[in-house]
Amino acid sequence: MSPRGRRPAGEDTRAVILAAARQEFAGKGYDASSLRAIARSAGVDPALVHHYFEGKPELFAETMELPVRPAQVVAALLDGPREQVGERVVRTFFGIWDSPDGRERLVALIRSAVSHEEAARMLREFLAREVFGRIASALGVPDPELRAGLAVSQMVGVALMRYVMGLEPIASADPEELVAHLAPTLQRYLAD
Amino acid sequence: MSPRGRRPAGEDTRAVILAAARQEFAGKGYDASSLRAIARSAGVDPALVHHYFEGKPELFAETMELPVRPAQVVAALLDGPREQVGERVVRTFFGIWDSPDGRERLVALIRSAVSHEEAARMLREFLAREVFGRIASALGVPDPELRAGLAVSQMVGVALMRYVMGLEPIASADPEELVAHLAPTLQRYLAD
Repeated sequence: MSPRGRRPAGEDTRAVILAAARQEFAGKGYDASSLRAIARSAGVDPALVHHYFEGKPELFAETMELPVRPAQVVAALLDGPREQVGERVVRTFFGIWDSPDGRERLVALIRSAVSHEEAARMLREFLAREVFGRIASALGVPDPELRAGLAVSQMVGVALMRYVMGLEPIASADPEELVAHLAPTLQRYLAD
Repeated sequence: MSPRGRRPAGEDTRAVILAAARQEFAGKGYDASSLRAIARSAGVDPALVHHYFEGKPELFAETMELPVRPAQVVAALLDGPREQVGERVVRTFFGIWDSPDGRERLVALIRSAVSHEEAARMLREFLAREVFGRIASALGVPDPELRAGLAVSQMVGVALMRYVMGLEPIASADPEELVAHLAPTLQRYLAD
């Protein structure tokens, strides 16, 4: 018997899961969302979610249409001299966000959420857990979660001012100038 | 002939100006608001605004029920060794925001705005221009406006996570631990 009614097939299933995930993440934030709850609200077996998506970070990245895969970004940021990790982090973020495509997607993802606030919350929780938290843990600093939170507070703070609110002079600043100011901050939070 | 109808007297006038200011700041942000436009929307002569309020920063502080006067805070922050200005800034902010009264007012002011986003925008613009911008200028660093923007992005970013969103572990962190991490950041942005 082929599945129908409750559970659509193929690309449809994928789309249904993505829609359910979008709603779950927006409503509960990243941390409190679970693949199990997303499967339930999509009306599919949890195994199907794992069939289509590697895990929660990858599913989140797809619902937000993030232009990068979290695990690959973290691996790339950790690949290089420890004393330059802050600079790599800041340069990578502005590299993604400042590209016409990245900027458009960032603004779109924040606009597409129910409120900017919810979008910013999801982004904060996701970055803290899946990006900065992993970097701080890999580098063995004390209090990696607190440091990840500080890194998030700085990078999301700048992103909101630069891309969403357009507050000058941050909005039009040369990215290299921002890198010069922000790299030592991220270095201290994540690696010192 | 005593003024009536268009212009109430005494405390009423003050309250009408405050209400008009609240609306103007929320609608246009801090930077784009003017005392002249506030007077016009309150239906009073601009001289009356100056009679009741020292200037735009003081009027803003009153509409937001900020527990401190901006000019006094800036003077206090500049009074002491230059190499500790970052620490004084961070300690003063947490001193105000972490007190039960300060925390209540901060959350109330953000909740009382039409949206958290507008409140956060006003607070960012106000802090950049009237607090951090004045400190950076007084200390003679290059690009004082950019540095003020960076200082705002960090302090408002932490405040949103700690007081408004309640994101852990920032929300429950010991204030002294936050001071230890944030003081060097603010020192570099504002004074180095």
